[in-house]
Amino acid sequence: MHTLNVDLSHRSYPIHIGQGLLERADLFLPALQQKKAAIITNTTVAPLYLGRLSDALDTIGVESIPVVLPDGEQFKNWETLNLIYDALLENRCERNTAIIALGGGVIGDISGFAAATYLRGVPFIQVPTTLLAQVDSSVGGKTAINHPLGKNMIGAFYQPRLVLADIDTLNTLPDRELKAGIAEVIKYGLIRDPVFFEWIERNIEGLLERDPDALAFAISRSCENKAVVVARDEKESGERALLNLGHTFGHAIENAMGYGNWLHGEAVAAGTVVAAHVSHALGMLDESGVRRILDLFRRAGLPTVPPDLGIERYLQLMELDKKVEEGKMRFVLLGGIGQASLKSGIALETLNDALQKSHV
Amino acid sequence: MHTLNVDLSHRSYPIHIGQGLLERADLFLPALQQKKAAIITNTTVAPLYLGRLSDALDTIGVESIPVVLPDGEQFKNWETLNLIYDALLENRCERNTAIIALGGGVIGDISGFAAATYLRGVPFIQVPTTLLAQVDSSVGGKTAINHPLGKNMIGAFYQPRLVLADIDTLNTLPDRELKAGIAEVIKYGLIRDPVFFEWIERNIEGLLERDPDALAFAISRSCENKAVVVARDEKESGERALLNLGHTFGHAIENAMGYGNWLHGEAVAAGTVVAAHVSHALGMLDESGVRRILDLFRRAGLPTVPPDLGIERYLQLMELDKKVEEGKMRFVLLGGIGQASLKSGIALETLNDALQKSHV
Repeated sequence: MHTLNVDLSHRSYPIHIGQGLLERADLFLPALQQKKAAIITNTTVAPLYLGRLSDALDTIGVESIPVVLPDGEQFKNWETLNLIYDALLENRCERNTAIIALGGGVIGDISGFAAATYLRGVPFIQVPTTLLAQVDSSVGGKTAINHPLGKNMIGAFYQPRLVLADIDTLNTLPDRELKAGIAEVIKYGLIRDPVFFEWIERNIEGLLERDPDALAFAISRSCENKAVVVARDEKESGERALLNLGHTFGHAIENAMGYGNWLHGEAVAAGTVVAAHVSHALGMLDESGVRRILDLFRRAGLPTVPPDLGIERYLQLMELDKKVEEGKMRFVLLGGIGQASLKSGIALETLNDALQKSHV
Repeated sequence: MHTLNVDLSHRSYPIHIGQGLLERADLFLPALQQKKAAIITNTTVAPLYLGRLSDALDTIGVESIPVVLPDGEQFKNWETLNLIYDALLENRCERNTAIIALGGGVIGDISGFAAATYLRGVPFIQVPTTLLAQVDSSVGGKTAINHPLGKNMIGAFYQPRLVLADIDTLNTLPDRELKAGIAEVIKYGLIRDPVFFEWIERNIEGLLERDPDALAFAISRSCENKAVVVARDEKESGERALLNLGHTFGHAIENAMGYGNWLHGEAVAAGTVVAAHVSHALGMLDESGVRRILDLFRRAGLPTVPPDLGIERYLQLMELDKKVEEGKMRFVLLGGIGQASLKSGIALETLNDALQKSHV
């Protein structure tokens, strides 16, 4: 087991990464304030891991209240959130009753927002069961639900007390979701860790074959990168925005195609390709950099061509993104592998050219 | 103008109290991060003060987006909250666009929750226009909406950047609401400020006649008390719970009678009378203390007799209150005028007797 720490003074918390952790009830103990916890999960994850987790909690005398939601990004909305509130109220959950998110990014985001807002905030624990959630969404305290007009428009910054990433749960993850998670792993290399990017280039096959050592290393290294950024800029007033590489176009893709049709990681991969082309057009990233990015996404089995929506539709969707400031869109661009920076005021023509190039 | 400070290190903020403050755009400037702000208000307050505030903002070049909600506690719910989100999204409000709450406690609570959750948090300014909001709900960062199963069940702790209490707005406040606000003023005296309680006993007529000096003093002194408690215990892990004197029974009354039929302050007054009887039964508060409380509420024109719901219904409603811990109800009781404390494990019979006594 590898343990990292997200350093946020009195709200610091550990991330445990390893095999067989779902059974390690002792790891949960320090984060629980009473002998009762609600486990929020979905219809896909519940048959696989809910029993194992609640049995483990049972051995330390903790009663667990299961709340099983429908599975999918299209359910990350107010109606589903209300199912959680109703269950918490009906089961008399109190201010000290912890909420445990058992699932992927959608479960983590919606459970975290429920934890942030039920009785103005209750203890929250993340048990991510997808690669995407283990390397990205479970760490850092971003919680949210979607609004018909945009992804993650309603949410809160709310840090968990504990993140427990059991690598064994990745054994049941569909290939497509594994690959979508790898998109976010590659992101960390691209924005700030060129040595890690090279490691991924050398080890992409091992990750796709689910080699436990390769996965453990990739998850730990990703979380290390994220933990440092989050500790320095919890509320995204600066550096943290770099973690959104590929996300401005990515969110537009997800939104336009209907949530759940493109996986988040897939949309981020295609969005990152556009960002790479924009970076190249502005003379920031050389041709070989663009090629390495395209090659790695392709080897990972990720889409590199964004859907052809037309520039007007993209602009319309992106203007709603949270990264807009004083009416200006900001993009995360690359000055090289491992060197991301924030740029605004990019010419429409440059964006359009980059979109066109992505389709070649 | 009198200015207080709520001391929360880098999230500290000023409370300005005085006459003619709605026109003082200069007071808003330090809390605004861009030349655009959304003003959330209701159909009652809008015709009275919305124009005055947006004109003032206009003089400093700030464009304001008005969002006018239906008036009443029964609208403090998800549907109304969504009207706010929709307006913010349609008007392209961004992370730096401030939300200004112009109205009473309901507007402050729901606008604050919108500010806490829109794009994971935007700058928030409170411009309370009722006595209750000026002395209590606008200060301290509690935001919430109601759930069919309980009041303020969904919410967040989210501090404003500025509270601006213009005493002139109280001139248009209905008598019944003025009295409801006085209930919370009396509360501060009861829980921690016996000298202030004596002042209220001497000046209750002045308050009811809306003497500006009396109101200014009562608001400042109430806010001073609240600011100290909030600075010491922002998230209500201890002392802050004392501010809920009368609220456990009070919330039950509001919920049972239908939100809006009993005003919050009225329910708190009747709830405080029950708390006084419980305190007396436990030998904490002497007979003369109970009498002074009853007398002052009566002189303020506040109800002192809770509705006759029967103890079972009260218990059922109170068990859902946020003040429950490990299944035990906690009550704020009085060890004398100005001495509140938290007690749990109170016998059912004691509660029932106190309810009966309140009906005599």
